[in-house]
Amino acid sequence: MSSAVHSTEEYDMDIRSLSSSHRHPQDAPYVHKVGLPPKQNLFKEFKATVKETFFADDPLRSFKDQPRSKKFILGLQAIFPILEWGRSYSFAKFRGDLIAGLTIASLCIPQDIGYAKLANLDPQYGLYSSFVPPLIYAFMGSSRDIAIGPVAVVSLLLGTLLQSEIADPVANAAEYRRLAFTATFFAGITQVTLGFLRLGFLIDFLSHAAIVGFMGGAAITIALQQLKGFLGIKKFTKKTDIVSVMHSVFASAHHGWNWQTIVMGVSLLSFLLFAKYIGKKNKKLFWVPAIGPLISVILSTFFVFITRVDKDGVEIVKHIEKGINPSSVNQIYFSGDNLLKGVRIGIVAAMIALTEAIAIGRTFAAMKDYQLDGNKEMVALGTMNIVGSMTSCYVATGSFSRSAVNFMSGCQTAVSNIVMSIVVFLTLQFITPLFKYTPNAVLSAIIISAVIGLVDFDAAYLIWKIDKFDFVACMGAFFGVVFASVEIGLLIAVSISFFKLLLQVTRPRTAILGNLPRTAVYRNILQYPEATKVPGVLIVRVDSAIYFSNSNYIKERILRWLIDEEELVNKSGQPKIQFLIVEMSPVTDIDTSGIHALEELYRSLQKREIQLILANPGPVVIDKLHASDFAQLIGEDKIFLTVANAVAACSPKLMVEQV
Amino acid sequence: MSSAVHSTEEYDMDIRSLSSSHRHPQDAPYVHKVGLPPKQNLFKEFKATVKETFFADDPLRSFKDQPRSKKFILGLQAIFPILEWGRSYSFAKFRGDLIAGLTIASLCIPQDIGYAKLANLDPQYGLYSSFVPPLIYAFMGSSRDIAIGPVAVVSLLLGTLLQSEIADPVANAAEYRRLAFTATFFAGITQVTLGFLRLGFLIDFLSHAAIVGFMGGAAITIALQQLKGFLGIKKFTKKTDIVSVMHSVFASAHHGWNWQTIVMGVSLLSFLLFAKYIGKKNKKLFWVPAIGPLISVILSTFFVFITRVDKDGVEIVKHIEKGINPSSVNQIYFSGDNLLKGVRIGIVAAMIALTEAIAIGRTFAAMKDYQLDGNKEMVALGTMNIVGSMTSCYVATGSFSRSAVNFMSGCQTAVSNIVMSIVVFLTLQFITPLFKYTPNAVLSAIIISAVIGLVDFDAAYLIWKIDKFDFVACMGAFFGVVFASVEIGLLIAVSISFFKLLLQVTRPRTAILGNLPRTAVYRNILQYPEATKVPGVLIVRVDSAIYFSNSNYIKERILRWLIDEEELVNKSGQPKIQFLIVEMSPVTDIDTSGIHALEELYRSLQKREIQLILANPGPVVIDKLHASDFAQLIGEDKIFLTVANAVAACSPKLMVEQV
Repeated sequence: MSSAVHSTEEYDMDIRSLSSSHRHPQDAPYVHKVGLPPKQNLFKEFKATVKETFFADDPLRSFKDQPRSKKFILGLQAIFPILEWGRSYSFAKFRGDLIAGLTIASLCIPQDIGYAKLANLDPQYGLYSSFVPPLIYAFMGSSRDIAIGPVAVVSLLLGTLLQSEIADPVANAAEYRRLAFTATFFAGITQVTLGFLRLGFLIDFLSHAAIVGFMGGAAITIALQQLKGFLGIKKFTKKTDIVSVMHSVFASAHHGWNWQTIVMGVSLLSFLLFAKYIGKKNKKLFWVPAIGPLISVILSTFFVFITRVDKDGVEIVKHIEKGINPSSVNQIYFSGDNLLKGVRIGIVAAMIALTEAIAIGRTFAAMKDYQLDGNKEMVALGTMNIVGSMTSCYVATGSFSRSAVNFMSGCQTAVSNIVMSIVVFLTLQFITPLFKYTPNAVLSAIIISAVIGLVDFDAAYLIWKIDKFDFVACMGAFFGVVFASVEIGLLIAVSISFFKLLLQVTRPRTAILGNLPRTAVYRNILQYPEATKVPGVLIVRVDSAIYFSNSNYIKERILRWLIDEEELVNKSGQPKIQFLIVEMSPVTDIDTSGIHALEELYRSLQKREIQLILANPGPVVIDKLHASDFAQLIGEDKIFLTVANAVAACSPKLMVEQV
Repeated sequence: MSSAVHSTEEYDMDIRSLSSSHRHPQDAPYVHKVGLPPKQNLFKEFKATVKETFFADDPLRSFKDQPRSKKFILGLQAIFPILEWGRSYSFAKFRGDLIAGLTIASLCIPQDIGYAKLANLDPQYGLYSSFVPPLIYAFMGSSRDIAIGPVAVVSLLLGTLLQSEIADPVANAAEYRRLAFTATFFAGITQVTLGFLRLGFLIDFLSHAAIVGFMGGAAITIALQQLKGFLGIKKFTKKTDIVSVMHSVFASAHHGWNWQTIVMGVSLLSFLLFAKYIGKKNKKLFWVPAIGPLISVILSTFFVFITRVDKDGVEIVKHIEKGINPSSVNQIYFSGDNLLKGVRIGIVAAMIALTEAIAIGRTFAAMKDYQLDGNKEMVALGTMNIVGSMTSCYVATGSFSRSAVNFMSGCQTAVSNIVMSIVVFLTLQFITPLFKYTPNAVLSAIIISAVIGLVDFDAAYLIWKIDKFDFVACMGAFFGVVFASVEIGLLIAVSISFFKLLLQVTRPRTAILGNLPRTAVYRNILQYPEATKVPGVLIVRVDSAIYFSNSNYIKERILRWLIDEEELVNKSGQPKIQFLIVEMSPVTDIDTSGIHALEELYRSLQKREIQLILANPGPVVIDKLHASDFAQLIGEDKIFLTVANAVAACSPKLMVEQV
């Protein structure tokens, strides 16, 4: 009986052995039916979807079955995690936090002054933003390793966006500053709202590749901006693209460069890069690059103070406002045109700031294996920016470089942020006058050495190796930032990311399956060249949910597989195709358009006298096949648990026709 | 040896029987390796992706290996399919086309006059649009059944959009008309461009559910607009939402309604609906509803001519310009503000027109089992609209109601459109003066009876049964159109459709698998309650490609499954979980973010002393696992062909620990 098939293929024997090896060989193979999941009520189904979408992490889990007083305490602890971990805080932990806090403070003070310049703000605003926000975060945040404060990329982005609204940040300094606080306020509101509405997953739509490219491009742009301070150029372009900047640099080559500044800048940068190199070579010496900036600031300030080279044209900081953050509540625009501008800029800055902070938080949480609730984190970051906007701070977030130093210095909890905050407070109160003679060149050198780490060649190479499309997104974002502007780069990154997702849902993969010799397993014949097709049967796997966006494509793709296969079969004189098995394991869902496409496929196959057979539809799919009566249309007996079962059911009929 | 496991589960025996039933039972099971597909070169890979995205239907297939002269002929035939099917055209076919063409002509003439009103244009523009575009389509289109001309929904959409730019279409009739031609021109350009760039799949992003809702809502809105002509109201609102319209209707109830008009309208509508009912009851009498409109126009016109009730306030058509389409080339705006408006309106109208035409084309192509190239179809539709815009036509497309009549009257080819076009030509040349006394009420009745079929309760109910989310999209579009405007409804439909797609790629499904008794098959335990878990092993299936948009969610979801399972295991005193098997069959692709997520998962598992095992990664995934060195990280021997193999590899180790 089985000779016809057996001669060409071994599969028949194996299928039977699958389920009936210990029974009489003549028995019909034991065939499991496709399970129809228990009917769910509509409300439950809806609730489950909402829960999985917005509360995937089940944030109220610990609240279950607790007395009311306990719930209140848990609620407080949820908002202020310090109440939870603070109870087990110890002196040993404090020692770690103290050292880490002092280290990041020494790093952040010179950086802050430089970053404020990127945002076109006076230097003290950078320091302000390293005082209030870290304090707030320490009480509300749940990451133990993140170091809060102004960061290079967000400062640059804010500066660019604000400047596109207010042309001259120097002439209109007051208005510019007010718009900056407005943007910061709405950045905070955006972050709190996203967290509160549990829309945190929105930041996942910026792909890793796009971020790598964007960060690298931003780093190059920031470094290029530093050429102004580094070469001592007076007239510098306001644009950030590489063409404008290089033009500006070379146009001023003859009369605009200041050789004293260049010598100072180059030697300081060499010192900082050497310190970085030492830290990289020997992990134990991580503190060398960490305190390098502070040392170079002290040395160069002292040098300028002694030699008074500022009289020869070396630009210096000159003046930093003394004292802590003044209130800025009534500086925020709550009406008029500037309100809208502030909202728009705030939303963009909020998303980039969140992306950076959450990426840092997740990285270190994974390293130390603790859980981080992205949505709660957003509420903390947002609150700190709202309070910041009222106390003369601009958008703060987690800094890559300082968080890494914080981690390596042995921080234990967010107390290291408090320590840093106190040091910044003391600086603001007592030490700012000492920065008078600090040359701008040292700030430029510090910023260049800080952002250089954001250009991540290894990551880009890995992306190239793994996914070419991702690499295009990465490069698109990179060149967009470098040759156009941070906004354009960001837009390119987001567009390419979305395009990739849409491509996935529009053009899903399909594969022809074959039987692996000596098994009942059917696999993609391109991946397993040893897999053999079953004569008279075409087995196609669809690798995606069948939705309106791809249903038509899938239908036509399957028909095209069939036409190709029929051509092949005709040429080689093999038996005609009589069965089309669609392996539906990867088809997780189907919608009305998908059902229509299946119906059209069924009708086309009927005209060709080919039977449509489905293998292993999932719970949602089988439910909908029944609801739409498609299962009855093709016949319930045409739906099988596995491809092997389906093939087994086809083969006797095939043989009859071949005899 | 196997007693520990055997006592609780039967799977062990079955796995062995899978592959070694005819060999000695002590043999190690035959384990297939996971296939690594042959390395593809970068260019080939890229070419394959582009081909699958834009040339999925392989349009150049027939050009392969042909001499140059043959290629030229094939190329001409590709642009003008009439050259291909025209060669086998016969008298028998012409008989079918003639009858069908005359039938749809009798239907389209009164419809055209009414639809032109929906677009706020004079009646002759409706007739113009049924003369030139069908002719062009007949030469370039590949659908045999579609009937081309102005349609209700596009007319309404165009009227609404144009009116939002030019407030008073009567006072500024010339400017309004010019903008209409401009929009038509750019609608054509949009359609040709989409087809030429092979971006036809973009229209697939309007889901079936959204279209059903949108069409239903548009039909209600159109019917409501007809209350003006139906009740003889003089002052009527310009808004289209139901609230404004009903307010307008009842505000004029006392003095604005004309009873003669109402009597005439009601009797004509009853006649038309009765004709429709007859056609539905008996498929052979399909011609009754098809010629109903023409008969009612003739009867009512004659009646008005005899009784002169127009003097009592019954509104009549009064005047239709005689003669065929004048040129409108120099009326199109190619500069200034109106150019931009025209482009914007044209793009929206083009998309809706395409959606309708392609849906019709596909439906009938599936019924008669011929292939339709969506992209080529778009070029044909676009060309006909470009030519139309230069010959005083507004946007034409395929009409649902007339195409169905065309099909049922036995049309064979696009020649039926030529026949219709000739009849419209004769009408324009000779008969238009006869329409002078045609009452507007009959046009309103014809439009109401035509659009009523667009409210598809059955389809809506089916959508409700199959997919609740689709139903929300459907209702959103419906109520958006009815209560706000066609634009808002369209926006809602598109937004909900996109949201659904994004949800799919953000929150993919995952499932816990169990072993089906007496098989080596592992399935979702929610779908198959009889499936049993393997003690000490957690098997999770991920039902989607792992991309940046979901990688973090998937990682955390798997860890949460693990925590839940460990709680269960602890309570029931079962053996501790030592292996986590991730079934990757449905994971069709993975990107850099996905690899990172897997690495983080691996590290978290290491801390818990649980081994990570992968089952059946697809060709793309296994390739990337190797490229990123993740395969080496977890160990190549931790990747199995099937879940059954993976479980078999775990179980001996499990038993050792349990002894």
